[in-house]
Amino acid sequence: MPRRIILDCDPGHDDAIALLLAHGNPEIELAAVTTVAGNAGIENVTRNALSVARIAGIAGVPFARGAARPLVRSVEFAPDIHGDSGLDGPALPEPLFDVDPRGAVQLIIDTVMASEPGEITLVPTGALTNIALAARIEPRIVSRVREVVLMGGGVHVGNWNATSEFNIVIDPEAAHIVFNESWPLTMVGLDVTHQALATPQVRERIAAVGTRPAAFVGELLDFFGATYLEAQGFTSPPVHDPVAVAYVIDPSVLQVVKAPLDVELAGTLTLGMTVADLRRPAPADCTTQVSLGLDERRFWDLVVDALERIGDPDA
Amino acid sequence: MPRRIILDCDPGHDDAIALLLAHGNPEIELAAVTTVAGNAGIENVTRNALSVARIAGIAGVPFARGAARPLVRSVEFAPDIHGDSGLDGPALPEPLFDVDPRGAVQLIIDTVMASEPGEITLVPTGALTNIALAARIEPRIVSRVREVVLMGGGVHVGNWNATSEFNIVIDPEAAHIVFNESWPLTMVGLDVTHQALATPQVRERIAAVGTRPAAFVGELLDFFGATYLEAQGFTSPPVHDPVAVAYVIDPSVLQVVKAPLDVELAGTLTLGMTVADLRRPAPADCTTQVSLGLDERRFWDLVVDALERIGDPDA
Amino acid sequence: MPRRIILDCDPGHDDAIALLLAHGNPEIELAAVTTVAGNAGIENVTRNALSVARIAGIAGVPFARGAARPLVRSVEFAPDIHGDSGLDGPALPEPLFDVDPRGAVQLIIDTVMASEPGEITLVPTGALTNIALAARIEPRIVSRVREVVLMGGGVHVGNWNATSEFNIVIDPEAAHIVFNESWPLTMVGLDVTHQALATPQVRERIAAVGTRPAAFVGELLDFFGATYLEAQGFTSPPVHDPVAVAYVIDPSVLQVVKAPLDVELAGTLTLGMTVADLRRPAPADCTTQVSLGLDERRFWDLVVDALERIGDPDA
Amino acid sequence: MPRRIILDCDPGHDDAIALLLAHGNPEIELAAVTTVAGNAGIENVTRNALSVARIAGIAGVPFARGAARPLVRSVEFAPDIHGDSGLDGPALPEPLFDVDPRGAVQLIIDTVMASEPGEITLVPTGALTNIALAARIEPRIVSRVREVVLMGGGVHVGNWNATSEFNIVIDPEAAHIVFNESWPLTMVGLDVTHQALATPQVRERIAAVGTRPAAFVGELLDFFGATYLEAQGFTSPPVHDPVAVAYVIDPSVLQVVKAPLDVELAGTLTLGMTVADLRRPAPADCTTQVSLGLDERRFWDLVVDALERIGDPDA
Repeated sequence: MPRRIILDCDPGHDDAIALLLAHGNPEIELAAVTTVAGNAGIENVTRNALSVARIAGIAGVPFARGAARPLVRSVEFAPDIHGDSGLDGPALPEPLFDVDPRGAVQLIIDTVMASEPGEITLVPTGALTNIALAARIEPRIVSRVREVVLMGGGVHVGNWNATSEFNIVIDPEAAHIVFNESWPLTMVGLDVTHQALATPQVRERIAAVGTRPAAFVGELLDFFGATYLEAQGFTSPPVHDPVAVAYVIDPSVLQVVKAPLDVELAGTLTLGMTVADLRRPAPADCTTQVSLGLDERRFWDLVVDALERIGDPDA
Repeated sequence: MPRRIILDCDPGHDDAIALLLAHGNPEIELAAVTTVAGNAGIENVTRNALSVARIAGIAGVPFARGAARPLVRSVEFAPDIHGDSGLDGPALPEPLFDVDPRGAVQLIIDTVMASEPGEITLVPTGALTNIALAARIEPRIVSRVREVVLMGGGVHVGNWNATSEFNIVIDPEAAHIVFNESWPLTMVGLDVTHQALATPQVRERIAAVGTRPAAFVGELLDFFGATYLEAQGFTSPPVHDPVAVAYVIDPSVLQVVKAPLDVELAGTLTLGMTVADLRRPAPADCTTQVSLGLDERRFWDLVVDALERIGDPDA
Repeated sequence: MPRRIILDCDPGHDDAIALLLAHGNPEIELAAVTTVAGNAGIENVTRNALSVARIAGIAGVPFARGAARPLVRSVEFAPDIHGDSGLDGPALPEPLFDVDPRGAVQLIIDTVMASEPGEITLVPTGALTNIALAARIEPRIVSRVREVVLMGGGVHVGNWNATSEFNIVIDPEAAHIVFNESWPLTMVGLDVTHQALATPQVRERIAAVGTRPAAFVGELLDFFGATYLEAQGFTSPPVHDPVAVAYVIDPSVLQVVKAPLDVELAGTLTLGMTVADLRRPAPADCTTQVSLGLDERRFWDLVVDALERIGDPDA
Repeated sequence: MPRRIILDCDPGHDDAIALLLAHGNPEIELAAVTTVAGNAGIENVTRNALSVARIAGIAGVPFARGAARPLVRSVEFAPDIHGDSGLDGPALPEPLFDVDPRGAVQLIIDTVMASEPGEITLVPTGALTNIALAARIEPRIVSRVREVVLMGGGVHVGNWNATSEFNIVIDPEAAHIVFNESWPLTMVGLDVTHQALATPQVRERIAAVGTRPAAFVGELLDFFGATYLEAQGFTSPPVHDPVAVAYVIDPSVLQVVKAPLDVELAGTLTLGMTVADLRRPAPADCTTQVSLGLDERRFWDLVVDALERIGDPDA
């Protein structure tokens, strides 16, 4: 039986690939897709999500628009990586359906409360604003969710600055809320996603799939590769968000270790840093874990396999 | 035409008197009453609100249970002032009705969105958790609300510590959200509520009303007076929350001054301090104001008048 | 017997007047004058101090150059108030003597250790960098000093921002050190110095003295009045630093109250705020006090009297 | 020609071994030894340093007592690692000489200013209080020192908490001062010193030297090994401080990388964290470097060699 997930995202090039992976892999069932401001503004990332749904042939899954801004801090975007639209590069088709009127937070709450306890896995790949709001509006979701597998943070490296990663630092209070709730939480951070590089070999494999969605991924990686080279000096771009989805499909794709995790809210140099205490084995009641190693081959096999299964949807 | 308000409270001795004032004064119409953890836990303050509704003869107004905890910080209560129940002292009757199933945040959103623009005034007298969540879940309420008149903070004095007031410091992130939204906001803080003292003369006037609700207020002030003497050295207890309601009834009860206002989120000594910039006249686009003086006579006249109008409800 | 003081200053227009007051008043004996970066760079304020010494006819008092920068923070000056030189306005004469080779910190230590216990009063009117360094290099000065009477801070008002005063906020760590040592400490802050206004009547009295030093003070106030009007909207400029000296001469010039005092080191809005806890009477072992009221008449009498006593020194 | 160093330490078991290494190795000349509160109080660590001098046969080198407390924070010791004396375990002989009357800060300043530019290397192995004070009292030492090689901090690990190391976190403001000055600075942190483990094999090599100083080191490691096992779970204790001395003797003992370095002063979880920006090659004007790898064999060879050269001093 496939794992039912809510993908909470801000497409975003790597979010788009995460959505394709989740849709194409048979071990995953998309219960809902929700959006949050981050890589670009909420209108842009929501429209991007709907356009990717058309490219991927996703139907029958509710999509909902979420938070337009962080809980406390001023809103920040990442145009140097994702362009002004949040998904610059490929031409995007008009969406075929519209968002759910309830909004992301209510859709998350309704989906979790209408499912069996332990059924829904939350997979946030953007700022944690929606998830934090849902947990505060309806605290019962916390024990009802199976687990949270999120892309964000980094134990030993940052990208927004020396210690902090974009998804966390743009809404550190939301991250603090989500990291400190009692649900099982796996942090898929830069420590592993900086190993998920779309090398020329990887891009050849994707091109060889030969479908329109695969070509779309190729165009995404063309743009993403150029901005990552320019902005952060990567010769092959790190493709962060699908790694979280891959872990839900197959936990063996990551080496994880249990560790107490928290988010710094007050530092001058370290605001938004995800602090893992790796000095000793975690206490028995620790519910958080961090990812420290990636099986790159297995990861990219999953991505290519999903594209092959998606094929060329009618659109 | 009376002003329609949502009273968002954590009864709480002074919250109870605020509720009586709002109900008894003909210039106010209670559109909804919502509760939030603060003076005691959410179950206690919610039950207290419903019991006070019975004492006051409030009917036909939706009451809803709100946030059980602050956005980010750990939950804190004030048993040294309000007792363990949040309303220690008087015997409380069983409530005659139950809470609205929607919960406080949704009730606030629904009430504001179903009213005319500029119709609803928010009167928070506890932590600002519910109001902050409502503003983030449904940002359109911000321009639709007439104004926010809140009891909390203090420019020149604190009570939780030297600089911070309880309602703000227990959820400073929520306060930061509410203070930084674009709605007109009046802060009714300790600068004025420490002048709203229930002196023996005041208590005689209340006793002279001679009704059961007035006797209930007398019992509240007996308990409140004893704890304020013990905990903070007040010979007559400050009755904070009704001052915010009184300002909605009659703005002349307070001297207010426009000033930029913000909430400190990072200080070691000053976390939760409400910072007003009083050095110069406020800029023309400033939407916040602070209270610096109280017409005590007028304030207590309003309280006594409300009790007289309430009389002895059938219960 | 006159009180022996070390004036630690950053002239600075009001520092210059403080130096004239200390020199001219018979109740004060200048044991040393030390300088610290603040109103302008250390070379400027040191030369300014020596030039003022010539104008005032000060001889036989060691002057020493102190800290060129704060302990931790980047250096900041106040050219909008004091001009680029730190003492813009009057023409300044060449100094008649040079600084003591020991430097300010060593001169403070040597002066205190060579005097009787309880003999020396420290009167800082700039950043507290030198005093903090001296206390850390030679901790025995703390119990040997009679008291510290400093111009800086403010309980209810700031000037650098809404809550913080320049002398404290430019080196908050130094202020934290000085405020938390066990010596008796009186804070003469903006709460009183904003009442020490050089009104037209005051300036007439000073002009009427008719000496060259009095004319120099008049020129200082011309410049200072113009910048304070422009920068902070004062119609008559507040003359901060001599108030601390006046308090040493005659404590009745200020209303002071004992209160625990500390300096905020971590706030976003409140960094460098001087936090006084005025909620209750201070504990018996409290060694700090704040000034809340000024006898303006008495203060300006002391300034005019000092100028009259100084007369026209040979220079 | 040997490198002249000032060893600024808080003995401390590993500080004692650092002192023996510096004394025994012919590439190093001890210009001065200064002490600072940290592992224990200043009286204890100073006496410990003098006792170790007797054991090692050090003569003709000035020793001076330094700061009894951090710049700003309250003083903290490490009795769980070093015992109450700071050097629990071995019996300590009475010192043969007394401290220099000038104190540590003045001795550092005098030694640096009396030497050629580029001659003196500072090797702090405790809190950076003395070094920070010296740099602020006499800023000219900064350009005159050859380099600073300090034991402290950690890029990827802490010991006081998840992110911070003891020497830095007990006086983070001092560390901030030292890390931000313009001298060349090498941070020898936990990333490498946690590889400098006194394994049974290492301890056999030391025992085999057969001298009284070597036996003393053996007793130090007996105590240190027991406390590190108990307090932090190390089966062989990390011997931090001599690694900094070893790097001065032979830079090839460490793999170092240039990187911007700073110290967090405001974090709740990360106060005192040493933040290195390793995302990109350091800019050309970067003067700081961090150690990321240790040649353990070479390191222990240097320690054993020093003990052999020291032999059995007359004492």
